[in-house]
Amino acid sequence: MGSFKGHALPGCFFLLAGLWWAGRFSLWYTTRRNKSLGSTRLASRSTQHRLEIIEGSTIVFFSVVGMLAEQFGPDGPWLHLYDHTEQHWEKLHNWQHSTMYLFFGLAGAISVIVHATEAAPLALDRLMLAMAFFMEGFLFLYHLHGRAMLDVHVHQLLLFSVFGEALVSFLEVFHRGNILLELLRASLTILQGSWFWQIGFVLYPPSGVEWDLMDHDNMMFITMCYCWHLAVGLLTVSMVYCTVSCVVKSRLKKTPPIEMGLLKPREREQESEDEIL
Amino acid sequence: MGSFKGHALPGCFFLLAGLWWAGRFSLWYTTRRNKSLGSTRLASRSTQHRLEIIEGSTIVFFSVVGMLAEQFGPDGPWLHLYDHTEQHWEKLHNWQHSTMYLFFGLAGAISVIVHATEAAPLALDRLMLAMAFFMEGFLFLYHLHGRAMLDVHVHQLLLFSVFGEALVSFLEVFHRGNILLELLRASLTILQGSWFWQIGFVLYPPSGVEWDLMDHDNMMFITMCYCWHLAVGLLTVSMVYCTVSCVVKSRLKKTPPIEMGLLKPREREQESEDEIL
Amino acid sequence: MGSFKGHALPGCFFLLAGLWWAGRFSLWYTTRRNKSLGSTRLASRSTQHRLEIIEGSTIVFFSVVGMLAEQFGPDGPWLHLYDHTEQHWEKLHNWQHSTMYLFFGLAGAISVIVHATEAAPLALDRLMLAMAFFMEGFLFLYHLHGRAMLDVHVHQLLLFSVFGEALVSFLEVFHRGNILLELLRASLTILQGSWFWQIGFVLYPPSGVEWDLMDHDNMMFITMCYCWHLAVGLLTVSMVYCTVSCVVKSRLKKTPPIEMGLLKPREREQESEDEIL
Amino acid sequence: MGSFKGHALPGCFFLLAGLWWAGRFSLWYTTRRNKSLGSTRLASRSTQHRLEIIEGSTIVFFSVVGMLAEQFGPDGPWLHLYDHTEQHWEKLHNWQHSTMYLFFGLAGAISVIVHATEAAPLALDRLMLAMAFFMEGFLFLYHLHGRAMLDVHVHQLLLFSVFGEALVSFLEVFHRGNILLELLRASLTILQGSWFWQIGFVLYPPSGVEWDLMDHDNMMFITMCYCWHLAVGLLTVSMVYCTVSCVVKSRLKKTPPIEMGLLKPREREQESEDEIL
Repeated sequence: MGSFKGHALPGCFFLLAGLWWAGRFSLWYTTRRNKSLGSTRLASRSTQHRLEIIEGSTIVFFSVVGMLAEQFGPDGPWLHLYDHTEQHWEKLHNWQHSTMYLFFGLAGAISVIVHATEAAPLALDRLMLAMAFFMEGFLFLYHLHGRAMLDVHVHQLLLFSVFGEALVSFLEVFHRGNILLELLRASLTILQGSWFWQIGFVLYPPSGVEWDLMDHDNMMFITMCYCWHLAVGLLTVSMVYCTVSCVVKSRLKKTPPIEMGLLKPREREQESEDEIL
Repeated sequence: MGSFKGHALPGCFFLLAGLWWAGRFSLWYTTRRNKSLGSTRLASRSTQHRLEIIEGSTIVFFSVVGMLAEQFGPDGPWLHLYDHTEQHWEKLHNWQHSTMYLFFGLAGAISVIVHATEAAPLALDRLMLAMAFFMEGFLFLYHLHGRAMLDVHVHQLLLFSVFGEALVSFLEVFHRGNILLELLRASLTILQGSWFWQIGFVLYPPSGVEWDLMDHDNMMFITMCYCWHLAVGLLTVSMVYCTVSCVVKSRLKKTPPIEMGLLKPREREQESEDEIL
Repeated sequence: MGSFKGHALPGCFFLLAGLWWAGRFSLWYTTRRNKSLGSTRLASRSTQHRLEIIEGSTIVFFSVVGMLAEQFGPDGPWLHLYDHTEQHWEKLHNWQHSTMYLFFGLAGAISVIVHATEAAPLALDRLMLAMAFFMEGFLFLYHLHGRAMLDVHVHQLLLFSVFGEALVSFLEVFHRGNILLELLRASLTILQGSWFWQIGFVLYPPSGVEWDLMDHDNMMFITMCYCWHLAVGLLTVSMVYCTVSCVVKSRLKKTPPIEMGLLKPREREQESEDEIL
Repeated sequence: MGSFKGHALPGCFFLLAGLWWAGRFSLWYTTRRNKSLGSTRLASRSTQHRLEIIEGSTIVFFSVVGMLAEQFGPDGPWLHLYDHTEQHWEKLHNWQHSTMYLFFGLAGAISVIVHATEAAPLALDRLMLAMAFFMEGFLFLYHLHGRAMLDVHVHQLLLFSVFGEALVSFLEVFHRGNILLELLRASLTILQGSWFWQIGFVLYPPSGVEWDLMDHDNMMFITMCYCWHLAVGLLTVSMVYCTVSCVVKSRLKKTPPIEMGLLKPREREQESEDEIL
C-alpha cells in the first residue's frame, strides 16, 4: 500500500463507517429515549435488524472486493505465497492487507448471521468486531520493522485508535446499547479514517515536498496533530448526534403518537428485550 | 513553560480542582446518606445541577484564558504554526499546551451542556474528563525526548497520577456516584497539583542551587517524595471529608426535618434517578 | 522438548481440549436456550456435573502422565534438581515443563472437587484454570533468553493466546456461563494447539529444509500465519456450534416435551441456580 | 535491609498476614453459607467488626514499630534526610522502607476508622490496602537500578505478587465479599512472604555458598521456584479453608440451632447488609 491512494482509500472507508455509526446509534438512542412520544415508529426493532443486516453485507462486500484487489491487482501476488525458485515470500504486504480484510469480512458475515437468524447470541457481532480491530492492530504492530522514525511514529499513533476501538467493542459485549461506548467507537473510527489520510499526506506528500522523517520537531508536531484529529472526530460525532436528535424531536412533534395502542404485543416485547441486552 | 511559574500555575489549578471536588463529592455523599434526616435541603438536585454548570463554565473560562495566554503571551506563536522561510515549527511547546487546554475546555463545555440541557446522556461528562486527562498524559508521554534523566523521571511520575485520573474517570462512567472513585480522583488531582510545584522546585529551583539531574540518589529520593505527596493528598481529602460530614450533621441536628412532606413529587423522583445513575 | 514430537504432543492435547470445550459449551447453551421445548433431558444438571468431573479427572491423569514422562523419560532428570559435583542445574527444561503440568493438574483436581462435593465455591474452577494458563505463559516468558529471533517470535506469538485464555478464564469468574467467553476460550485453545504444531514445523521441519531464523520476511509471514490459525480456530468453533445446535433442535422436534411435569422440583431449582451463577 | 534478617522479617509478617486472612475469610464464608444451621453464633457481625478493628490496630502497631526501627535503629538516619556538609541523601533505603510502612499504617488506621465508626464508606479499607500494596510495588520498581541480574530478577518476580495483591484488593472494592478474591489475596500474600525468605536465601545465603548472580541457569531455576512457592501458597490456603469449614460444620452439628428466633431484628438486618456489600 506504499502510496497516497493506498492510505486514502481505507481512510475513506473508516470515515464513512464512523459517520454511519454515529448516525445510526444516535437515532436508536434518541428513539429509545423518546419512546413515550411514540418514536418507535421511526426506528422499530425490525428496521434496526434490517439496517444491521445491510451494514454487515456492505462490510462483507467491501472486504471481498479489498481482498480481490490486493490479490489480483497489478501489483498483487495472484495467490502465490512463496517463490520456490528465488526462495522468498511473495508480496507479503498484500497478503497482510488481505488478512486484515478477511477478519473484517468475518465480522460482517457474523453480524449478518446474528441479526438475520436467531442461531447465535446477540453480542457475538461486537466480539467479532473487537477481534477484527485487534487483528488489524496486531498486524500493524509487527509491520514496522526497519522503517524511518517518523514512519514508525505515525503508525504507532494509529494503533492507539485501533486498539482503542478493539477495547471499546469488547466492553460493548458486556455493556451492549451503552450510547457512550457506541459514540466513542464512532469517534475513534473517524479518527482512524482521518489519520490514514494524514499518514498519506506525511509519507507520500502530493505537493512533492518531502517531510524529514528523522526530525524530532516533526514527531512532536505529528503527536499534537493526532490530538487535533481526535478533537475534530469528537466534534463531528457530537454534531451528528445533535442533528439526529433535533430531527427526531421535530418529526415527533408534527405527528402526535396516536397509533401507540396498535402495536402488536410481540413487537413491544422484543424492544424491551433489546434494551436489556 | 520552561520556568518555575509555568509549573506553579497549573499546579495551583489542579490543587484547587482537587480540593473543590473533595468538598463537593463529600457534601453530596453525606447528604445522600443522611436523607432520612431531611438533609436534601442542603444539597438538592437542582443545586447540584447549578454547581456542575458553574464548575463546567469555570473550566471553560480558564481553558480559554490558558489557550490565549499560550498563543498571545510574550513568547507565544501568535497562531503561526510553521515558519516557511526558516522551515521549522513555531513554538511547539506552546501549541502542545494549548492542545491540552483545548481538551479540558471541551470537557468543561460538555459538562455544561449535559447538566444544563437534557440533550446528552449524563455520564458523558465523566467520559470527556477521562479523555482530557488521557490526552494530557498522551502529550506528556511524547514530550520527554532528549531531556536529562531526572527531568524525564519527574515527568514520568506525573504520568502515574494523570493516567490514574483518566482511568478513575473512565470507571466512573460505569460506576457513577461511587464516592470512593470520586475521592480517589480528588486525591490524584491534588497529587498532580502538588507534584507540578515539586517539578518547578526541582528543575527551576528558586533558591538557585541546581539539582544534579544525572544523580541516581536524586532519582530515588524523588520517587519516595512522590509517595509522600500522595500521602499528603490522601490526608487532605480525608480531612475535607471529615469536616464536611461534621458540618452537615451539626446543621441537621439544629434544624429538625419538618418540611419533608412539602417536597414536590417531581424533585424526589429526580433524586432517586440520580442515585441509580 | 527440543523436537518436533515435543511440540506436536501438547498441540494435540490443546486441540482436543478446544474441540471438547466448543462442543460442551455449545450443548449447554443450546439446551438452556430451548428449555421450553423440554431440552433439559439432553443435558440435565447432573449430567453436566458428571461431565465436569470426567473432564477434571482426565486433565489430572494426563498432567500426572506428563510429569512422570518429563521426569523419568530417557532424557529426564529422575527427580535430581542439582548436580553438586559439577555445580549446575539438572535438565531445567524438563523441570519447567513438569511445573506447567503441575498447575494444570491442580486446576483439574480443583475442578473435580468443586463439582463432586459442595465444599468449594463454584467459580473456583475457572480461577484455577486462569492461574494454570497464566503460569504457563509466565514460564514461557522467561524461557526465551538467548534464542534466535524467529524462535523467540513464534513463542511470543504463543503468549498472546496463552495470556488471552488466562484473561478470558478470569473474566469467567465474574461472568460465568457467558457463552461468548466460553467459545472464545475454546477458540484460543484451538489456536494454541495448532500453533504448537506450527512451531514444530518451523523449528524442527520434518522435511529437513531449515528455516532462516534471522530473516525478517519469515517473521512477517509467521505473524500473518498466526492470524490465519486464529481464523481457522474461529471457524472450527463456529462449525461445532452450528452442528451441535442443529442436532439438539432436530432431536427436540422428534420427541415432544411430554414428561416435562415429571421433573422433580429439586432438580429444577438447581438448574435455575446454574443459570444465575 | 541488605541482610538475611532484613528479608526474613517482612517475610514472616506477610506469611502470618496471609494465614490470618485465609482463616478469617474462610470462617466468614462458611458461616454465611451455613446460616440456615444457625452458624451466625460463631461469627456474628459484631465479632467481625471487632476482628477487623483488632487486625487494623495490629497493622498500625507493627507499621509504627517498623518505621521507628528503620529510623532509630543502629544504621538508621535518625530523621536526617540530607547531609548538607557532604551533599548527599542520608540512608535512602531506610527512608524508602519507612515510606512503605507508612502506607500500610495508613491502610490499617483507615480500616480501624471504617469498622469502628460509621463515618466512612465500607469499601474504603480495601481501596487503601490496594494503594498500600501499589506503593510497595511502586517503590520496589525504582529500587533496582544498577544491581546484578539475578538480584533484579528476584525482586521483579516479587512485583508480580505485590501488584497482583493491589489488583485483587482493587477488584474487591467492587466485588466485596467475593470469597475467591479474598482467598486469592491470601495466597498471594503467603507467596510474597515466602518469597522474601527465598530472596534472603539467594542474596545472603546463611550457608555461605554464594550464588552466581550472572548465571542464566540460576535465573531459570528461580523463575520456576517462584511457581512452586505459588503452588505451596495455594495448597496452604486450601488446607486452611478445609480445616475451617470442617471445624465449623462439626461444631454446628453438636449444637442444634435452637435460639435462632432470639436474634434481635437489628442484628439480622446488619448481616444482610454485609452480604450485599
